[in-house]
Amino acid sequence: MRDLKDHPELCAINTATLGFQAPVHEVIDEIARAGFGGLALWRREVDGQDIKAITKHIRDAGLKVTGYCRSTYFPADTMIQRRANIAENAVALHEAAQLGAENFALVVGTGKDLSDARAQVIDGIGQLLPLARALGVNLALEPLHPVYAADRSCVTSLAQALDICDQLGDPHLGMLIDVYHLWWDAFVARDIARATGRIAGFHVSDWLVPVGDVLNNRGMMGDGVIDIPALRAMVEAAGYSGLVEVEIFSTQNWWKRPMAETLRIAKERFGAFV
Amino acid sequence: MRDLKDHPELCAINTATLGFQAPVHEVIDEIARAGFGGLALWRREVDGQDIKAITKHIRDAGLKVTGYCRSTYFPADTMIQRRANIAENAVALHEAAQLGAENFALVVGTGKDLSDARAQVIDGIGQLLPLARALGVNLALEPLHPVYAADRSCVTSLAQALDICDQLGDPHLGMLIDVYHLWWDAFVARDIARATGRIAGFHVSDWLVPVGDVLNNRGMMGDGVIDIPALRAMVEAAGYSGLVEVEIFSTQNWWKRPMAETLRIAKERFGAFV
Repeated sequence: MRDLKDHPELCAINTATLGFQAPVHEVIDEIARAGFGGLALWRREVDGQDIKAITKHIRDAGLKVTGYCRSTYFPADTMIQRRANIAENAVALHEAAQLGAENFALVVGTGKDLSDARAQVIDGIGQLLPLARALGVNLALEPLHPVYAADRSCVTSLAQALDICDQLGDPHLGMLIDVYHLWWDAFVARDIARATGRIAGFHVSDWLVPVGDVLNNRGMMGDGVIDIPALRAMVEAAGYSGLVEVEIFSTQNWWKRPMAETLRIAKERFGAFV
Repeated sequence: MRDLKDHPELCAINTATLGFQAPVHEVIDEIARAGFGGLALWRREVDGQDIKAITKHIRDAGLKVTGYCRSTYFPADTMIQRRANIAENAVALHEAAQLGAENFALVVGTGKDLSDARAQVIDGIGQLLPLARALGVNLALEPLHPVYAADRSCVTSLAQALDICDQLGDPHLGMLIDVYHLWWDAFVARDIARATGRIAGFHVSDWLVPVGDVLNNRGMMGDGVIDIPALRAMVEAAGYSGLVEVEIFSTQNWWKRPMAETLRIAKERFGAFV
């Protein structure tokens, strides 16, 4: 297991952690200045801007791009909308390739009929895979915590995500393992081992008690109950050697703080609690 | 699959649905008057009262007692506290037997070290089983929704609960299947089939969107996204033929309504959406 203490270069900052409070170029500078090794960007930060300039800025700053967030949800009530969602994801994949992102995060969406939604998701990912291959970008399927099954994702466990990965059988489809989404699962050790060689990304944050708003009240590592080092040990034993990405949605706390403060504390906590 | 329309006698009301707003004898009368077939009680309603009188009242009203709620959490930091929790559960099992309850609901608790908490839970259930056998009360292990992993239960999926059941291998340990806790699981059909012959109870309510307070904002059947009939079909195909229990924690809505109104609507919805 890698020693992370004083190694912020092994850490990537998902820009959502900083609350989208500044233009992307300023965010890039702050993350580089704090000594991190990479970042993950959101489409909303790139939209309408010069991607080449952003890419050059990131490269000049010495940062990797771990991930690009995130897919448009696949399931829809009409075939026209389903096709539009896939087309939108194809556009995003091109953006991810331009940015040199290691992965494009698949948060897949859901529907009232979960079986049908799941079938639509598998079909949609299957349609994107040839483009992902051609562009050399990995699709990173992210199982979400089951609390989001009604509104964000019909893929709610690592075992289920791995089954989808097995079914599609393409090396450009991997797993995005986020401790916030998977820490509760009694089978997580078994399933992370099963994901060996297929882990496309590893996200950390913490589960606060009480959790409050399950969507936008994630905790900084060390402030909650997740045994992050235990999960990281499993992920590294399964062959993952990429950057560890900090992703904290926190409208009431971290998003209200100055970026430099959040980054300073994230760096400390990364060394101590990840 | 049974036809529930105009068959409220196949429905039990978990008294938590009514918000604990009246003394237990009044609650019993209301449930019987509405035509339901049974009820499930909570320890807080029985505490300090004459259990024999309550039992006689229930029997005279023609009601079954499906469940008795619920276990004291098993995991604790000290051995003394662990023993006290088991002793408290033994007392509750005696109460359940006096009431003629079909099952004693095991909501098991949790701990920061989930593996250790799970080991304590298995040990604790194992210690209660001889008494359950002697008293003829089934222990009904209830996997909770993973959103409660930090504060209420380290058992968060049916597959996990079935593994515990397999490990302890005792016919007095069964599964309590609650749609609110399990509807999100991609493997629920497989696991309910695996639970054949071991289903000790079946609870219904609904998952509202947005869910809001995940603990105390459950919905009435038909107001949310859960495909309850699909789950009931699986449960009945797995051999369950007991009453279907309505359990709705809803501090902001149903608990504020008169009991008769909640019961009237529950009866309608039971026939239409369960």
